[in-house]
This record gives sequence, C-alpha cells and structure tokens, in this order.
Amino acid sequence: MLMRMSTLFLRTLREDPVEAEVASHKLLVRAGYIRRAAPGIYTWLPLGLKVLRKVEDVVREEMDAAGAQEVHFPALLPREPYEATNRWSDYGDGIFKLKDRKGADYLLAPTHEEMFTLLVKDLYSSYKDLPLSIYQIQTKYRDEARPRAGILRGREFTMKDSYSFDVDDAGLAASYELHREAYIKIFARLGLEFVVVSAMSGAMGGSRSEEFLHPTAIGEDTFVRSPGGYAANVEAVTTLAPPAIPFDGLPAAHVEDTPDTPTIDTLVTVSNEKHPRPDRPWTAADTLKNVVVVLKHPDGTREPLAVGVPGDREVDLKRLEAALSPAEVEPFEAADFARNPALVKGYIGPGVLGSENASGIRYLVDPRVVDGTAWVTGADAPGRHVYDLVAGRDFTPDGVVEAAEVRSGDEAPDGSGPLELARGIEIAHIFALGRRFADALDLKVLDENGKQVVVTMGSYGIGVTRALACVAEENHDDKGLVWPRALAPYDVHVVATGKDPAVFETAARLAGELEDLGVEVLYDDRPKVSPGVKFKDAELIGVPTILVVGKGLVEGTVELKDRRSGSSEQVPLTEAVARVRAEVRGENGSQA
Amino acid sequence: MLMRMSTLFLRTLREDPVEAEVASHKLLVRAGYIRRAAPGIYTWLPLGLKVLRKVEDVVREEMDAAGAQEVHFPALLPREPYEATNRWSDYGDGIFKLKDRKGADYLLAPTHEEMFTLLVKDLYSSYKDLPLSIYQIQTKYRDEARPRAGILRGREFTMKDSYSFDVDDAGLAASYELHREAYIKIFARLGLEFVVVSAMSGAMGGSRSEEFLHPTAIGEDTFVRSPGGYAANVEAVTTLAPPAIPFDGLPAAHVEDTPDTPTIDTLVTVSNEKHPRPDRPWTAADTLKNVVVVLKHPDGTREPLAVGVPGDREVDLKRLEAALSPAEVEPFEAADFARNPALVKGYIGPGVLGSENASGIRYLVDPRVVDGTAWVTGADAPGRHVYDLVAGRDFTPDGVVEAAEVRSGDEAPDGSGPLELARGIEIAHIFALGRRFADALDLKVLDENGKQVVVTMGSYGIGVTRALACVAEENHDDKGLVWPRALAPYDVHVVATGKDPAVFETAARLAGELEDLGVEVLYDDRPKVSPGVKFKDAELIGVPTILVVGKGLVEGTVELKDRRSGSSEQVPLTEAVARVRAEVRGENGSQA
Repeated sequence: MLMRMSTLFLRTLREDPVEAEVASHKLLVRAGYIRRAAPGIYTWLPLGLKVLRKVEDVVREEMDAAGAQEVHFPALLPREPYEATNRWSDYGDGIFKLKDRKGADYLLAPTHEEMFTLLVKDLYSSYKDLPLSIYQIQTKYRDEARPRAGILRGREFTMKDSYSFDVDDAGLAASYELHREAYIKIFARLGLEFVVVSAMSGAMGGSRSEEFLHPTAIGEDTFVRSPGGYAANVEAVTTLAPPAIPFDGLPAAHVEDTPDTPTIDTLVTVSNEKHPRPDRPWTAADTLKNVVVVLKHPDGTREPLAVGVPGDREVDLKRLEAALSPAEVEPFEAADFARNPALVKGYIGPGVLGSENASGIRYLVDPRVVDGTAWVTGADAPGRHVYDLVAGRDFTPDGVVEAAEVRSGDEAPDGSGPLELARGIEIAHIFALGRRFADALDLKVLDENGKQVVVTMGSYGIGVTRALACVAEENHDDKGLVWPRALAPYDVHVVATGKDPAVFETAARLAGELEDLGVEVLYDDRPKVSPGVKFKDAELIGVPTILVVGKGLVEGTVELKDRRSGSSEQVPLTEAVARVRAEVRGENGSQA
Repeated sequence: MLMRMSTLFLRTLREDPVEAEVASHKLLVRAGYIRRAAPGIYTWLPLGLKVLRKVEDVVREEMDAAGAQEVHFPALLPREPYEATNRWSDYGDGIFKLKDRKGADYLLAPTHEEMFTLLVKDLYSSYKDLPLSIYQIQTKYRDEARPRAGILRGREFTMKDSYSFDVDDAGLAASYELHREAYIKIFARLGLEFVVVSAMSGAMGGSRSEEFLHPTAIGEDTFVRSPGGYAANVEAVTTLAPPAIPFDGLPAAHVEDTPDTPTIDTLVTVSNEKHPRPDRPWTAADTLKNVVVVLKHPDGTREPLAVGVPGDREVDLKRLEAALSPAEVEPFEAADFARNPALVKGYIGPGVLGSENASGIRYLVDPRVVDGTAWVTGADAPGRHVYDLVAGRDFTPDGVVEAAEVRSGDEAPDGSGPLELARGIEIAHIFALGRRFADALDLKVLDENGKQVVVTMGSYGIGVTRALACVAEENHDDKGLVWPRALAPYDVHVVATGKDPAVFETAARLAGELEDLGVEVLYDDRPKVSPGVKFKDAELIGVPTILVVGKGLVEGTVELKDRRSGSSEQVPLTEAVARVRAEVRGENGSQA
C-alpha cells in the first residue's frame, strides 16, 4: 500500500539522542524506526517494524527450507521446568521473575530449552518421530546489567530459537550441521559479515558450541583468529600447555627479601637488582601472580578463589567467569582479607593457597603452570618472595583454569599459527546440547529395539533484533541509513519538490504505477516542506532508490538517485517507472 | 510448502483433555493446534500457528485499509506512565507486576493506552499531524482470577489494540466510526456472528463504549436486546425510572411487628397475614431490600456500602462492580456486622443507612426508588419493619446505583420494547476515551490558532486469540474442527490410503501439482497408518477439502470430500487437481 509521508507516523530528528553511543542506535532513533520505552526496551515505529518483519521473513524462510517447523511458546512461564534444570537459580539476576495473584512463581523466558523439551515429551514417544527441528520467532527477556547501544543489547528483544531432537549422537551432529548451514545462508541474505567461532557452552552445557560473531569495533565480544583457520571466542580459547619438565637437577626453592615489591613490576626490578639470575634478566613471565577473587554461586553462597597466572598476563575476568559459570566473579575486598589472615596482600603465594593449605582457599592455575616449571612468587610474608618454586614439586594447585588474558601473537591451540584479536557482536549461537535437558526432564523415546533412550538435543539461537541493528550499523554513512534492498522498508522513495501542482500529480501517478507493479513506495507528498528537508529525510531514512520529481518535469525528466553511491541521473519521465523497477529488481547490475 | 503428515509436528488425541470444558478447547488440543503451558497460558503448535497468522492477517489488512499504521510496543513496561493514570493501582491483582534487578517496578501490559499516548506526545505536536490511528498486534497479559476455556480467557494472549488521536470531538467520533466499520468487516471475514452492544467504559473512562459480543451459550457476558434495536451488555443497561410522585396525601410511615421475617419471602407472607393492604396483596416488589457489601478500593481501603433494590430483584454483583469500578465488591461478613452494631441483620433499613445516619454507611438505591415511592422495609430492630416509608420524604439515599438484576421482559431504556437476555463472548471493545489519558500524560498539540489543546483519544481492541477460539467453537461437529476456508491451516488435505506404492506416488504427484498452483496442501503420506485413522485425523484437523487417493485409483478415480457437509464424490484422476482448485477458490458455489 502506497505510504504518504504526509500521513506516515514519523518524526525525524536532526540531533542524536543523548543516550546513544553507536551509529545504529543514533540513526534508528533519528530516522524514526525505534523509540526507547525503558532501559533496553524499545518500541518499533512503522518504518522499523517493516524492516524487522523482513529480517524475520528471511530467518523464517531459511528455517522452513531446512525442514524446521514453526511453533510459538508463551514468554510467561512457570518456575518448575526451569527449577528441574537448575536454571531458575543459575540465571541469577539475569532473568525477570514474578509471582501471579496466587503466589506461584513465573519467569519471562530468556530461552526455551525446557519448554521445547517438555512439548516433545508430550507429543512424541518413538525414534520414528525423530529427527525433529522446531523453532519460534519470539519475544525474549533478559535483565541485562548494562543494556546498551539501543537494540544491540536489549532487555526485551526478538530471538529466533530452534531446538533439534535426535535419537543418537550422529543425528545430533547432522541436525547441528543443518542449522549451521541455514545460519550461514541467513546471514549471507542479510548481507552481514560473520565469523563462526568456537564458544563456551556456559550454562547450557553440551559437547560443542559455536558463535556467529559479526566483526565490528563496537562489539562487546573479543575473538581470535589464526592464519590456519582457528577461530574462537576469547572465553573459549584454550592454552597450549608446554610439556612437563623433569624435577631432576632443578634448584631448590629459596625465600629472599624483596622489600616493597607488591606488584609484578617492582618485583622484577628488585629481583634483577638484588637477586639477578645468571643467564638473563628476570622478566614478568618468570613470576607467578596470584589473584584472589570471590565466587558468587547461584545459591547465593560466596567462595574465595585464588587464580595463579604468569606475571606477564592479567587475569581476564570474562574468561574466568566463563570458565566457572554459572558462578559470578566478584572482587576480593578488604573485609575478605580480614577474614583470611593467612593472605598477605601483595605477597600471596602457593604456600598458603589451596584447599589443603593454611588459607583453605581453592587455588587454580593457568595451564602454563605445568609440573617442573619454576616460579618467583609470593612467600606469604611482607616484602618476601620465594624463588625457584617448582610446580608439582613444591606446590600442587587444586586444578587448572583458563583465566589468563589471551594476547595477539599467542599460538592457536591447534597449532595453526599466531592468533590475532578482534571484536565482534554475537548474532547467533548454536549448541550441541546433548542430553542435559532431556535427562533433567525425562525426555525418552523407544528406539528400534523397543528400548527407552534419552533424546539428544541441540539449541540454536539468532538475535533477530540484534542482527537488524548490525545491518544498520554496517549500512550507513554520515547522512543516514543505507538499507540493503532486501531489508529496506520501501523499495523506492518518491520525492515531489516545489509547489507546482503538476509535480505532485505526476509524482502521485508514478507512485501509483510503481505500486501496481508490486514496488513498495514511500511517497513524500508533503506540500509545504522544502526540497532540502525532503532530501535530508530521504537520506536519513535510507531507502535505496530515490526518485525526485521536481523542476526537471518541465523538460520531461525526473531524477533517479542511488542512496548508497550518491550518484544521480536525469531520466526521461516516460522511462522512470521502468528504470525504477529495474533498480528494484537489481537488473542494473548494481549492489543488491 | 507441502507439509507431510509423516513429519508434521503433531499428535492427535482421541480423548478430551481433562481440564477442557468447551468444544473449542477440547478440539484445539485434541487436533494438535495448541498445548497448555500453564494455567491460561498456551503454546501454539504448527497447525494452530498457521490459523492464528491467518486471523492476524485479516485483522491487519482491515486495519491498514482503514488507514491505521502498525507499530509494536514492548510488553514489559515501566510503572511510571501507569502510575500517572492511576491504572497501576486500579488494575489491582489483575495485572502481572515485577521488579528488575535494580528494584524498579514494571508490569506486563494488559493494554497500552499510556504508551501510545506518550509516543504520540514524543513524535507529534500539531493539529496538522492529526487525525492519527496506530495499532499493534501484540502479546498481552492479564492475571485473570479464573482463566478458563483454553484460549477463550487466557492470561497471555494476542490482542490487536489500536488508538486514535484527534484534535476535537468530531474527529474522535469519525475515528471511532472508522474503527467500528473496520471491526464489522473483520468479523464478517472471520465468519463470526456478533452483536454490537453498549458497554460500560469501566476503568477506561470516556464518553462512549461498545462491545462486540459473539452470541454463544458458553459466553461469560450477559447482554440484552430489544425488538427495537437496543443492545447492551447487562452491566451497561440503564433502568427506566418512573416519574416522581407528589408526597401529598401519602399515608404516614408506621412501624409494625413482623416476627421471623429475615427474608423477602417471609416478609411478604407475614405482611399479607398480619398487615394486609386493602387494594391488593403485598408482593416482593413493594418491599425495599437493603444489601450490605464491602467495597475494596484500589488503594486497599475497605468501605462498607448499602444498596437498596426493590425486593423482587436480586443485586447483580457484576452490575454493582461495574458501576463502582475500579473498586471491587466483597461480601459483608460477620466481623463487619460486629463493627457496625447499628445494622440488624435481616431488618436493615434506611433508618440507619446513609452517611448522615447512625451507621454512617453510604447508601445507594435503585433508580426505581424515586421520590414519592412508598416501601416496606427494615425498621432496624429484630422482627420489625416499617410500612409506607416514602423516598424523599422519610429517607434520602446518598445516590443512585445500577445494581439490580436485569430481567427478560424489562423495558429497554430507549423505549424500544421488552428486553431479551442472551449470553456472549466479548471479542472486541471500542472506547471513545476522550481526554482522560491525554490529560494525565499531558498530550497536547497546537491547534489552527496556535493554541495548545488536549488531544482526544479512542482505544479499540480485538481479542485475536479469543476470536480464533470463537471460530473454532462455531465451526465444529462431533468428529472435529471444520475450518472456514479463509482460516484453515491448509486448503486441502490429501490422504493416501492402503499399501500400493502407486497410490502414494499419485498422491504425492497431485499434492505437488496443487502446491505449484498455490494451493496449500497437507499430505498424509504415513506409510503404516490405517485408512480409518487417517480419515479420523483428517476430520479432527478440519481442513475443508479432503482428497482421498486409494482403491479407486485402479479405476482412475479419486475421492473428493467436503469436510463441512460430509458429502463425497468420485472424481476422475485427470480432473482431480482442477476440481480441488475450484473448491479452494470457491468456484463451485459452496460455502466459503
């Protein structure tokens, strides 16, 4: 239906909204696509809703083509299924919880593994019913601590989530691959660059998980890539541990005075001054830095934890938290030190750390701290450090943890070369869940031999509104949005300029003819608005083709503009409709 | 896309679900359209979702045709706007409330007047921007005390809600009429019988409001109709008050002994025995019955209230509650009597009622209790009543209330004849809201003279999922659902029977040819399922046209069945596709 700017529910803004930091947020608000209703919660205006529906349709078509069937679950769900899988508590503050009038507990679902599992249990009972993939495009809720960047990280957002059900591991692998391929097609159709990276399964559990990251400087996720094709979210990067070193011949540990060395820098300086090593100077990599934190478990209990990493690396709190999920990492504060007198701030060492030692604090170390490696580290007394402290000989940590920062140039764990770091936005995540949810909720089917077997599942999500924001982020210039054709709210923006009634009559006729050909038209028919304002609005809104009917009309021409390239051309009036149609259908060979 | 029953995510049930009371609920569950996730909260399975989308599309097309523009609001909304209009408290237990991680109050929106008002305030500022109608098709939440009948009265449901914005009353009237007409078209297209009745505006306020009721015995709403065209929800019926009677010559009031007369029946009997009137026997209509209740106001305060009605009528608590909304009506219990010693149970009379009298209890009477009417009523002493007590002379109530039951045969208030009562389901409600919300949220525009004027609004809702349930309720037989063509999940259900591979090959070919013609096909290709089970499933699912490929194939025929009429016909294989297409397009002249 032809939409006239004079009636379109729209107000464009010349100024960026104060709270907006990223281009997509600024422009989607300024161009009248979205409006903020509450922190992280947005309203879709007519232009925005049209684009959102187009994104949803791309997702839907590819899911259907992959044989998945669409269903629709409630967003308001009872506590019990989430209790059965521990996620009621594991999600902590990250989900919205509420009570109904009878006092029963509900949540606003952040994702629907439990409900899909129960539904399949309700309907199906035989291996013959499988494989099955079902999906929904639905409103999801997460109580993000820091909602940001408009719809990039919202608290109410649209997600496509699908779930696969198979009788065995081979089936799951095939279902996983089918989703992976469908996702690749979807993001290609959306024109969104992406990298598929290995990821942590986190609270989901399961055997394999990958993220689709859209690489962008404004991304909140850091990922790594190697020349040989390794790619992983930084949380999922594993460290190449060196081989263990035999203890034979290693010098004995010895404690030395190292006054005023509460930091690695001061320790290295003082070590080189007072206790120089014969072969080369001490470096930060020779030291073992012990960092204490507090783990907050989902049940609310707090546990002190010590993490030992080579002193040339920081502890990456996101990697640490991912490794210890669902526990959250909190700072170890003065009161915690007071409760743990064995810890000497600045000089904490393996002598007191570990569940068997004086502090009783669990002690996890970086994978590089293999048996036989010797370290300079805290001697648990002010101004004193221990040298030649050998792992496995002089101390035994409680375990290993991937918590040290990953650096550009680190070797990829698969030996495919040095890693480079980049930032990205997670636009999809696929999980080979395995049997965790089916076990917890007792989803079994009869196999070919009449035996009850637990179903194995996958779960696959696309952030629909987030993907839209990424498209906007990647498709704009300093004048406004520049939609790819497949997602533009309209195919062509017809602009009538000036005051000549013949111009408006001709523009309306052209708009009508285009609509009759199936071209979606936004027609700027506003009578008392200057050409300058109309052009600015058209550029801000970002419809890919702009047709200007104005002064040229007396010579029988109209102006055909390409929003992306900025190029424009005078076209005979008689050819205008055919030319626009060709542009819309991509028949001119230009970018789709 | 051709859907095969062998892969369709479906399990039909032969037994009714235990909790289901009404046919639509039973059949939508049994035929695999919906599944219950929690009380009043349902999941849409593939077949159900297809029908729901078709209902939504009908609504969307007619709203667009009426010039309304689609937007989409969040369901999770902050407290403040609802606080500004008092609805945060007025809704009481009827809405879901929650807190986010920062302790801020949110609700799950039951309807969006506030947010639409604020959005228009954000975008628009001039009379030139109006009129405006915007709508959404969105998930709504109400914490119903008694969710029932499947999706007929759910706690999470789909609603189309629109809002009109006008600069003056004439504009609002026009917008209201436009919506009214669009709704009439929508329900006609859905094939749903409806009655438009006058309604109470309730918590909405406003000058005019009408409900679209679908007449059905299972309806929870009672409405009245007169031969002359009056129609109203029973809560909205107004009483024709008789003219006042001059006091001159009316006998003086006198108290009499009426032992053991705590009820109207006993009072009438004893009156006729002990205090007969000369002209005719006493009847219940001569008595004034005083009923005490407790009003629970939104702020939690409780107020006793007395209601006086002619003794031949009950107090209709739904009418009383509607009249006193947003207060809720609760029983007046023993403890309340204890707190109000002036009230003598069974003998309560106007002598103590009223804010100026002994009890101090507010006293509202039926409109029939006009000045000059004489009543037999309680004398506020055990076993005693007062006779010839004249309203306006001997007692003055605090006001009038529409709380007496409406009875079949009562005169319509507009004089259009006697009322008949019927039951129905509210499928839509339209409100000429006026300026209540715009006032509360300060929505003003500049008028033609550059003066700030408050915008006047309408609000218009359709219960989309409820309308779907009504369609199912009206379109079924003892074998299952019988969808109208426009809403059926598929156009034709192709059933292959037997074991002959040629049958399956032919059925698949026909299904494919039909799909190529744009006919939506559900193809029952299940290899080891008996014809009887397949036919039962087809009847339960309710696709309007069924094409059976089976034994007749050797003679070159297939069977074309009409689900609604039950008629069937052998059709030459060569004509099958053309015949099905003609049925689907309604070219055979049968019911659409």
